[in-house]
Amino acid sequence: MSNYTAPVEDMGFVLKEVVEIEKLCNETGLDSSTVEIIDTVLDAAGKLAKEEIEPINKSGDSEGLKIDDSGKVTTAAGFKEAYRHFVEGGWGSLQFSPEYGGQGVPFVVAASVQEMWHSANMSWGLCPLLTQGAVEAITLNATEDLKQRYLPKLISGEWSGTMNLTEGDAGTDVGSLKTRATQNGEHYLIRGQKIYITWGEHDMSENIIHLVLARLPNAPDGIKGISLFLVPKILVNDDGTLGKPNDLKALSIEHKIGIHACPTCVMSYGEIDGAVGYLVGEENKGIQCMFTMMNNARLTVGLQGVSISERAYQQALSFCNERVQGVAPGFKDIGPIIRHPDVQRMLANMKSITQGSRVLTYAACAEVDYSLSKLPLENLEKHERRLGLLTPIVKGWCTETAQEVASLSLQCHGGMGYVEETGIAQILRDARILPIYEGTNGIQAMDLVGRKIISDGGLGARELISEMKECTKNPAIAELVSVSQLKRFSKSIDDLDSTITIILNHSDNKELVGKIAFDTLMMAGTITASWQMLLSLDRASNAVNNHKSSAEFLKEKADTVKHFIDFILPRYLSSFTTISASAE
Amino acid sequence: MSNYTAPVEDMGFVLKEVVEIEKLCNETGLDSSTVEIIDTVLDAAGKLAKEEIEPINKSGDSEGLKIDDSGKVTTAAGFKEAYRHFVEGGWGSLQFSPEYGGQGVPFVVAASVQEMWHSANMSWGLCPLLTQGAVEAITLNATEDLKQRYLPKLISGEWSGTMNLTEGDAGTDVGSLKTRATQNGEHYLIRGQKIYITWGEHDMSENIIHLVLARLPNAPDGIKGISLFLVPKILVNDDGTLGKPNDLKALSIEHKIGIHACPTCVMSYGEIDGAVGYLVGEENKGIQCMFTMMNNARLTVGLQGVSISERAYQQALSFCNERVQGVAPGFKDIGPIIRHPDVQRMLANMKSITQGSRVLTYAACAEVDYSLSKLPLENLEKHERRLGLLTPIVKGWCTETAQEVASLSLQCHGGMGYVEETGIAQILRDARILPIYEGTNGIQAMDLVGRKIISDGGLGARELISEMKECTKNPAIAELVSVSQLKRFSKSIDDLDSTITIILNHSDNKELVGKIAFDTLMMAGTITASWQMLLSLDRASNAVNNHKSSAEFLKEKADTVKHFIDFILPRYLSSFTTISASAE
Repeated sequence: MSNYTAPVEDMGFVLKEVVEIEKLCNETGLDSSTVEIIDTVLDAAGKLAKEEIEPINKSGDSEGLKIDDSGKVTTAAGFKEAYRHFVEGGWGSLQFSPEYGGQGVPFVVAASVQEMWHSANMSWGLCPLLTQGAVEAITLNATEDLKQRYLPKLISGEWSGTMNLTEGDAGTDVGSLKTRATQNGEHYLIRGQKIYITWGEHDMSENIIHLVLARLPNAPDGIKGISLFLVPKILVNDDGTLGKPNDLKALSIEHKIGIHACPTCVMSYGEIDGAVGYLVGEENKGIQCMFTMMNNARLTVGLQGVSISERAYQQALSFCNERVQGVAPGFKDIGPIIRHPDVQRMLANMKSITQGSRVLTYAACAEVDYSLSKLPLENLEKHERRLGLLTPIVKGWCTETAQEVASLSLQCHGGMGYVEETGIAQILRDARILPIYEGTNGIQAMDLVGRKIISDGGLGARELISEMKECTKNPAIAELVSVSQLKRFSKSIDDLDSTITIILNHSDNKELVGKIAFDTLMMAGTITASWQMLLSLDRASNAVNNHKSSAEFLKEKADTVKHFIDFILPRYLSSFTTISASAE
Repeated sequence: MSNYTAPVEDMGFVLKEVVEIEKLCNETGLDSSTVEIIDTVLDAAGKLAKEEIEPINKSGDSEGLKIDDSGKVTTAAGFKEAYRHFVEGGWGSLQFSPEYGGQGVPFVVAASVQEMWHSANMSWGLCPLLTQGAVEAITLNATEDLKQRYLPKLISGEWSGTMNLTEGDAGTDVGSLKTRATQNGEHYLIRGQKIYITWGEHDMSENIIHLVLARLPNAPDGIKGISLFLVPKILVNDDGTLGKPNDLKALSIEHKIGIHACPTCVMSYGEIDGAVGYLVGEENKGIQCMFTMMNNARLTVGLQGVSISERAYQQALSFCNERVQGVAPGFKDIGPIIRHPDVQRMLANMKSITQGSRVLTYAACAEVDYSLSKLPLENLEKHERRLGLLTPIVKGWCTETAQEVASLSLQCHGGMGYVEETGIAQILRDARILPIYEGTNGIQAMDLVGRKIISDGGLGARELISEMKECTKNPAIAELVSVSQLKRFSKSIDDLDSTITIILNHSDNKELVGKIAFDTLMMAGTITASWQMLLSLDRASNAVNNHKSSAEFLKEKADTVKHFIDFILPRYLSSFTTISASAE
């Protein structure tokens, strides 16, 4: 039973020294005053997470949700209040445009704050996560009128957002969806049923803005005939006040293995007269509009992996320091189990994976900031390529490793881990959704090899590989790790390069490419995280030289990075051998 | 939602062709008439599993258990009836001595039948599993009087058994337990509290025989001062009839992440006058007596890993054949998701791990039969060494891989996997206990490197390595797999040999040995399972030549074995690199 404490030191270090937030603000034209307040922001967010959002995590899991016959959903005790404090603190608006009430903070900084929400309470954190996606889709695709009417309240968090893609027979294959939209004057009428709608109905915000994929009459078949509609739970009058309820409701909520406090709804639209909806973007271009929100949502799900890993690690560390059992080698008396080498190995695996997934995820989030900026085209395209490449890697690798970290933490608890009381069981159950939603990790793997490696002939992948090779030539890094460690990292880059060649040489053999895609994803994740860890070590060493960081911090970082290189990096070898054997 | 069908073809093949049950019976002096009835036994057990035990699995998970104020536990609907049919069918007595009512069937055959119970319903299957352990401990350690009085009813299953080790502050460190025993005439009085007592109290059998570790007055401290007592729930009269209730009861049952239908009890002994108990084995030798039951229990937990993998694979296979979604590469129309290469990869991983863990586990179970036989001493010792070596490997590797297979199966279900309805979520939740109970996998790893590798100077490990090397020289196998596959397997044996050398060279460095123990365990599991898979392929080919098996079976086995060599074997490389790096 542990309380979560936000790891503000590592977060601040990654933001300031590794992501180089000051440089990022200067190059992207974002307000660089953020830099000065980063520590204050992290501390304040950490306080909210610890004092308001974490304490309702376990109770929310036990209590779950209530739904009445009219489809009204009541959230667990304390959820509404915590959400109100979140809105009052302006936490939902950090990264959005000041034009609609946002604070213009870099996306990567907002991401670090979001990491805390999901560590503290993943069920709760999903509500703002979905709202963020809705804001992005509306910002990039909707008319100015819709923006003016919906964005300010969504950005403030007074209203929340959802994404409605899935239907019973349209999951991964979203193109086969059957929900219909017909024009009716200036708006449309939506009729159909959607499933797995996260926070589809609840009592935390005054209104819920659903973004719904539906098909217009005579639209082309499949994915090219889908349009996106904004469908508010309560209609909004011209003066911005709330009008009458729209024709939609939650039919039921799913009984899931985890995230019990998060309502996953079956939503019904237009059972009576048709639900009023407004077209977002062009007709039949709904899937492109949805993708603008899905890409960042994928990164944020990867970030949830970081959150779960951090939380699970903290809980294991605290348990292993407290639980007294047995005499460890080199000791004379019984003592805490953290003394045992195998327990230390598990903790070090958890810690190094957590830090590796954090720095990799933040690096990808920084690419969002660069990609949205007004850099010269060539430079911009490079950042877009990098973002595209890293998105499936972050989503896939950080959510797979989160399963492992959660499971290791449970394992450290022994028999007590299997009993719900300690809370680690909930973390494991909550975590299991991460490799599934926002595109299963199998889909991420296909995205990586198909859309991100093959489609540009390996350009983006090779840019990344060159940059990682630079890192092996950095004399500072060579001083901080052993010759053998650096050699193994260097070899891993060559092997990744060979993997890219294998994929490009067999790009027409979709069966082979499909079969090795997942191993490619995991291999790429392991190696890019190693790279970012080595980079972190270099930056930590710099920071000590510049009196920005302590010698203790550097020592701990060095231990963690070396552990990563010895215990985590070698995993790519099994993927690479499998890939090579398959291609033979 | 799938029904389980026992994989009798693969089970029969492994028993008859790989384990060579006829040879085993002849060499060990067991009744070789078993061989003729194996198929009948497997079919009948499969029918019971499918028709009576599996149908109450999901309902048992939802319904859970009831405990009243007096400590009486009521099991979920149907559990009692299924157990009665199990007892009536004589299924509990298969492998036990005919002297006490057993059927004298080899342990490995009984294991194959048990695999079915756990696939069908792990919660339910744990009751006979614990009884088996109690029978073994009593058979090997108790007085003839106790044997006569307790064994027949335990063997028939009319009475069930439990093992009582753990207390609040004595888990892995069982030596620190506090339960007390004092002599009182011909029996002892037991007083204390035990936790995590599987099937500690229930309504399926007329009596429950608890085997309880406790401390006599003035006993030495720690593990050398513990004695084992037989403590019946209801006292047994001299004529074998049931007398008055003993002074013991269940105080509560745990709220666990899985195995909801299995009562995990807090047991209280002797709150009033002291619970009547009978000494089993010598005073202060309780831990040795307990280990005789724990070793086989560890194998059986490994077997549960096989069961979970088989069940999870079957469910995924059925779902992927039925679920229609998207157009797969090489197809023109939408079709079942099994057409997608990444889904095929997941299914092939599941299938090959399941078969690999089965053949490895059965091979270890056969060593139990050899070890219990009257072979010449030298030969016997070799079998005991092999059994000792394989036990932690089977427990550790098969339960770790079961987590992966269960999780992969859930992943194949996409969003539906995360919802409890499909049943795969339960399998994942149930499975999570396996790496924890009967000694956590960390403990298995320490047992492997400490008691099984270092303590005999690598003798048993090197015997195993030589035998695996023989396999690489088998010309039949060289014909069945590619040169590269055989080369990679051969290299893995050399690397395992190097690992043994590393461990022996650093045997005094307990910190290093502890840190690499888990990787050694996983590496050994992956390689020994590869060996058994290659051996299976050779035997399948023989069986076809001798008209005992079909060409289709051989083709499927060849595909599965080759997939194992390409996709699973390479994992040892990451462990080996980690081990080598740590030793540097």
